[in-house]
Amino acid sequence: MSEIFEIVKKNGKKRLGVLKTAHGIVETPNLMFVATQASVKAMSAKDLFDWGIQFLITNTYHLYLRPGLEIIKNAGGVHKFMGWERTLFSDSGGFQIFSLSKLRKFKDNGVIFQSHIDGSYHEFTPENNVDMQRVLGTDVMMVLDECMEYPVTFEYAKHSVKRTLDWAKRAREQFLKTSPIYGYKQYQFGIIQGSIFENLREYCSKELQKVDFDGYAMGGVAIGESKDYIRKVIDMGDRIMPNDKPRYLMGVGEEDDIKYAVEKGFDLFDCVVPTRNARNGALFTEKGKILIKNAKYKNDFSPVEEGCNCHLCKNYTRAYLHHLFKSKEMLAGILATEHNINYYMRLMKKIRGSI
Amino acid sequence: MSEIFEIVKKNGKKRLGVLKTAHGIVETPNLMFVATQASVKAMSAKDLFDWGIQFLITNTYHLYLRPGLEIIKNAGGVHKFMGWERTLFSDSGGFQIFSLSKLRKFKDNGVIFQSHIDGSYHEFTPENNVDMQRVLGTDVMMVLDECMEYPVTFEYAKHSVKRTLDWAKRAREQFLKTSPIYGYKQYQFGIIQGSIFENLREYCSKELQKVDFDGYAMGGVAIGESKDYIRKVIDMGDRIMPNDKPRYLMGVGEEDDIKYAVEKGFDLFDCVVPTRNARNGALFTEKGKILIKNAKYKNDFSPVEEGCNCHLCKNYTRAYLHHLFKSKEMLAGILATEHNINYYMRLMKKIRGSI
Repeated sequence: MSEIFEIVKKNGKKRLGVLKTAHGIVETPNLMFVATQASVKAMSAKDLFDWGIQFLITNTYHLYLRPGLEIIKNAGGVHKFMGWERTLFSDSGGFQIFSLSKLRKFKDNGVIFQSHIDGSYHEFTPENNVDMQRVLGTDVMMVLDECMEYPVTFEYAKHSVKRTLDWAKRAREQFLKTSPIYGYKQYQFGIIQGSIFENLREYCSKELQKVDFDGYAMGGVAIGESKDYIRKVIDMGDRIMPNDKPRYLMGVGEEDDIKYAVEKGFDLFDCVVPTRNARNGALFTEKGKILIKNAKYKNDFSPVEEGCNCHLCKNYTRAYLHHLFKSKEMLAGILATEHNINYYMRLMKKIRGSI
Repeated sequence: MSEIFEIVKKNGKKRLGVLKTAHGIVETPNLMFVATQASVKAMSAKDLFDWGIQFLITNTYHLYLRPGLEIIKNAGGVHKFMGWERTLFSDSGGFQIFSLSKLRKFKDNGVIFQSHIDGSYHEFTPENNVDMQRVLGTDVMMVLDECMEYPVTFEYAKHSVKRTLDWAKRAREQFLKTSPIYGYKQYQFGIIQGSIFENLREYCSKELQKVDFDGYAMGGVAIGESKDYIRKVIDMGDRIMPNDKPRYLMGVGEEDDIKYAVEKGFDLFDCVVPTRNARNGALFTEKGKILIKNAKYKNDFSPVEEGCNCHLCKNYTRAYLHHLFKSKEMLAGILATEHNINYYMRLMKKIRGSI
């Protein structure tokens, strides 16, 4: 049983569920748009709220470095800081330490890294990372994990999983020892690592379940490995992850992967795919991806997607959006992001409808 | 008498008026936000419409080069291309040829210039410039003029005014010889040049009045000269410009200059001041300009402007906007632009209320 998650319906491995936090409900399967620096790029939280977006995810690494936790605390948490009133997850920053920071050195206690902004040195430990996420006040926090690169040797992966597990235990202890700052409950998810090695992933999951988290995530996926390997890890999910807790596939956002993972019993997703593609001029439609900078759209006065109800498709043409991108107008990224967010909301709704 | 302009009330030199075009009315005095490339930077035309913005100005130089007139024609004019349903002015591009293009060479017929985008060569003549603005389908087009730099000698200015007048006559002839393409009426304004020389400006204005335009603009102002000289040219306006036609002070947008010019009998303004300042983090408030990137706003959880009804001030704090600017988030420029546009709408409304 899970305090925050209820499975409403099962169909094969597919699960229709509801995640409940102090800031509202999330119908699952569902995807979080990414507000790395307390902002979904080009979008106002108020608009996202009005469109019915149910949750977002922000990032401890980024917010810790800028604006800094003191500011977030003075604001009363990230929700208030960024004006977001619904459910908010936070990633621990483990992945960003691995992908962004200039130096990464493991110490007994945790990891020392250099800020990608100003080169200053910082230390994250499983414990201080929980404290940080208490300050963020996010509804669901992720534990600090080691994100391995891909590929790694089995030996390295084994060693790394040991560290991730040690950290997870310490993070849970810290979580249970501390209290929310802003008067509402927070939850904590464990992260299953193990690269593409099934026995490591299985071991990691089992050990994490002994710790007993509020939910479980599959981490270290879609970081450069082939689609086959992504699918291989997704395939493990239903077998190695608990049934009664939310299952979160981190960093996966391609439509086909999401659909595949829902089939295999995953509930939660997050990805920059919709927003980053938008800013690069790639728009998702039911008939496929439109690369709007392509010259063939120069003279195309139809909407990006017929029947789409978004601000872009209701008011502007492909030719206009093409022009905005070619002219490097800010409005290009704004309109495209609105569309892709709308597309993904529809996609997730359709996926839920199919269960 | 003017077909498109009516003075509703006079108070000293101040004029409260209404400008009427096929796309609606504009209460004057009023300021056009600038949609150089068929987009007010960071803003959707639909939103501007919903906020009650009454007119915008776009640019022949820019649209001619990109997306090109064929696209605009296929769209059915700039209004349709950019989804703007209210009044739209277009500048001839004279100023952009002077300020942006790599080369500028006067020929008997007009001016040859090199595109700032790809270095290609183009020729604008008074006649083809009118034809271009017929294709744009803007409600009010400006004649092609020579924008002198500042400072210039009297001799140069005299020579230049002669050219501007010659072009103005030819532009008017072309205008009267041609018809609108999209079934609604277009109007044409003349532009008074003469640098800071009052007798040249006066001569230019008199000669333009003989040509008989639908409105008159003071051009070549605020291009580097001191505030004193800007004021000096503004001071000439009431004396040398006709009473019964709209008077447009081009490129002026600082609040004190607008107020001064309204006192002196000007009706129309356009400027990138509100939008460009916004993107640079300068926000206008009734208590003065806020430079939001300043460290003192890092921890300031009040709205940018108390009592302001814009999206930014209703939903977000100074601390959050400061963070967005520091983090180079697109939302920074978007929210700031919304605020400054809102501020300028309020400003112009107050100015009208004071007449």
